[in-house]
Amino acid sequence: MRNSSRGMVDPFIVMDVMEAARAAESAGRHIIHMEVGQPGSAAPAGARAAAAEAMQDDALGYTVALGLPALRARIAQLYGEWYNVDLNPERVVVTSGSSAAFLLAFTALFEAGDRVAIGAPGYPSYRQILKALSLEPVLIEAQPENRLQPIAADLKGLNAQGLMVASPANPTGTMLDHASMSSLIGAAQAEGAAFISDEIYHGIEYEAKAVTALEITNDAYVINSFSKYFSMTGWRIGWMVVPEDHVRIIERLAQNMFICAPHISQVTALAAMDCYDELRANMKVYTDNRALMLEGLPKAGLGKFAPPDGAFYVYVDVSEYTNDSRQFAADILEHAGVAVTPGLDFDSKRGHQTLRMSYARSTADIVEGLARLQAFMSNQRA
Amino acid sequence: MRNSSRGMVDPFIVMDVMEAARAAESAGRHIIHMEVGQPGSAAPAGARAAAAEAMQDDALGYTVALGLPALRARIAQLYGEWYNVDLNPERVVVTSGSSAAFLLAFTALFEAGDRVAIGAPGYPSYRQILKALSLEPVLIEAQPENRLQPIAADLKGLNAQGLMVASPANPTGTMLDHASMSSLIGAAQAEGAAFISDEIYHGIEYEAKAVTALEITNDAYVINSFSKYFSMTGWRIGWMVVPEDHVRIIERLAQNMFICAPHISQVTALAAMDCYDELRANMKVYTDNRALMLEGLPKAGLGKFAPPDGAFYVYVDVSEYTNDSRQFAADILEHAGVAVTPGLDFDSKRGHQTLRMSYARSTADIVEGLARLQAFMSNQRA
Repeated sequence: MRNSSRGMVDPFIVMDVMEAARAAESAGRHIIHMEVGQPGSAAPAGARAAAAEAMQDDALGYTVALGLPALRARIAQLYGEWYNVDLNPERVVVTSGSSAAFLLAFTALFEAGDRVAIGAPGYPSYRQILKALSLEPVLIEAQPENRLQPIAADLKGLNAQGLMVASPANPTGTMLDHASMSSLIGAAQAEGAAFISDEIYHGIEYEAKAVTALEITNDAYVINSFSKYFSMTGWRIGWMVVPEDHVRIIERLAQNMFICAPHISQVTALAAMDCYDELRANMKVYTDNRALMLEGLPKAGLGKFAPPDGAFYVYVDVSEYTNDSRQFAADILEHAGVAVTPGLDFDSKRGHQTLRMSYARSTADIVEGLARLQAFMSNQRA
Repeated sequence: MRNSSRGMVDPFIVMDVMEAARAAESAGRHIIHMEVGQPGSAAPAGARAAAAEAMQDDALGYTVALGLPALRARIAQLYGEWYNVDLNPERVVVTSGSSAAFLLAFTALFEAGDRVAIGAPGYPSYRQILKALSLEPVLIEAQPENRLQPIAADLKGLNAQGLMVASPANPTGTMLDHASMSSLIGAAQAEGAAFISDEIYHGIEYEAKAVTALEITNDAYVINSFSKYFSMTGWRIGWMVVPEDHVRIIERLAQNMFICAPHISQVTALAAMDCYDELRANMKVYTDNRALMLEGLPKAGLGKFAPPDGAFYVYVDVSEYTNDSRQFAADILEHAGVAVTPGLDFDSKRGHQTLRMSYARSTADIVEGLARLQAFMSNQRA
């Protein structure tokens, strides 16, 4: 049957790792999962209780396209709590995860053929979604001295109609501070490019609070999700904040493209936002895990990385050991029993010398994983 | 802020009706809802019980992109039960409702600028999603003598790269029988156009079983959902069956565009498929309601429609009363307290003389709604 060229997106290389890890587990081996991009924890118990109640009391039909008004209001309130930003709830759009937010944002903002700048390394789906929507991803090769984040000067001459940034970023965990975010926003506005800020890892930050683009401008799309901080990946629920004059555009698109985000997930998300104790407990795990990684990875000879400001990843430069991160990841899986992600998914050009290691799972797993990595690497170097 | 032209899709006219109905209810009036496109019932109780259990036992993280293997297998089994079609579960793709299936199908099949033929009247989101994806909807003006379904001859000279049909259709409820479906498939194949069959209302059929395109060809995309027959609209869960050589294409697109369908909804849907008693009870309501509509609407002078083979709609030609279905719907709401949908959403050219009336809600509501319509229309004609 016929197929389009825009639909032929790249496979995830990490899928090979995951399949190999699954096969190893089927064969009886014990694998530590540092390749995962999601918390090991469930949605907060209080949130699940609210979901169970709603299933009894409500037919849970379609909601309005922009989401339950109570959820939109509660999300607006979060901007007060987290950033001291006074946000009009009318600007909040509830989405089926950040995935749906990307589809809505790119469709509302860009014509087929438009160029959208994104940093490399970066979340691989950015460029694949752009391609699927007949847009052209323009990769900014972010530099180690900029902690692998784009800077304002990078936008010059790109002729881009959009710029999307992520802070904290996947795979690096590095953040844009207020000054860097401001200058990127300024650069985008000077070029007439739409500014999109992916803030999906907000809340999972360690030394400093993450900066939202909304502290700096209202003229931006901000994308966020309940997947990470609120530990609700599989529920497919997120949100977007858009400029006031874009709310009706997004509403009409959402009505047609999605109808609404999952009703049960909206109810669950609303309750999750008040489960402070459990969310703090999750953060304690990430904080402990990060400390272990920052101490343990250098001991394993894997110390070339920018310390992660947020999220639950470390993006390690392994250029002294390999030019083939895919094979290196396969070796680590086979010999150390630790699944890690080759950098190629995040940076097809330079990712052959990098690995992403996630510390989203239990502290016990991190301790064991680091011990295995240290043993493997000491053999490697012996 | 900048916005694209493809993102500027039309508003739903029915939203005005719904807003007016809501305002009337706020003012204390009692409104019968014949404008709705969804069951009034919740997901089957057995399905909700399975969901409650899963929330306790499972972290409900991401599933694989194509969906839980058990759900894909169970859906394949349904094709045996319903149509005696032996379907390879590998061809089943679990989606976030049929909405996500449309996005995946159109992206996989068509380049920006491609032309996709659809029938008018039809589900308004077809043309809006096509537009949002930079595709060109080519409207086939379906004829009353063909029960408002496209026929093979309609495809001639359209230079379309795709043809999408719906059976049972929204807003008419009419179906394509085996011969009509076959000749449409043959016509599409002769033109080199991809064939997409929207089968979202399958299971809700009255005199004859609906025909799936898979009875005729494997060279088609078939889209279905748990929203209607399984009464799970707000759960955003559906599926698609694609040709074998398209599974990997769709898998990669789904990984990037959606990650996965909501995990909790997948679990719920799997259990819903075995809730035979409750599903049969729902069907009994639709069957009773349809009989009431087929008897009551002609008595109200609203008898010009093709008898609906399936779904829960009647699409009434009101040309003897009005040239302004929007105003007519507003009058019916104001004077009869019945919300109905003007045909303009489904057929922008000829819908000014039609109304869609849904009988998805309770039988008591249908009885009352028909009585009100009869009283209103007898005044109208007096």
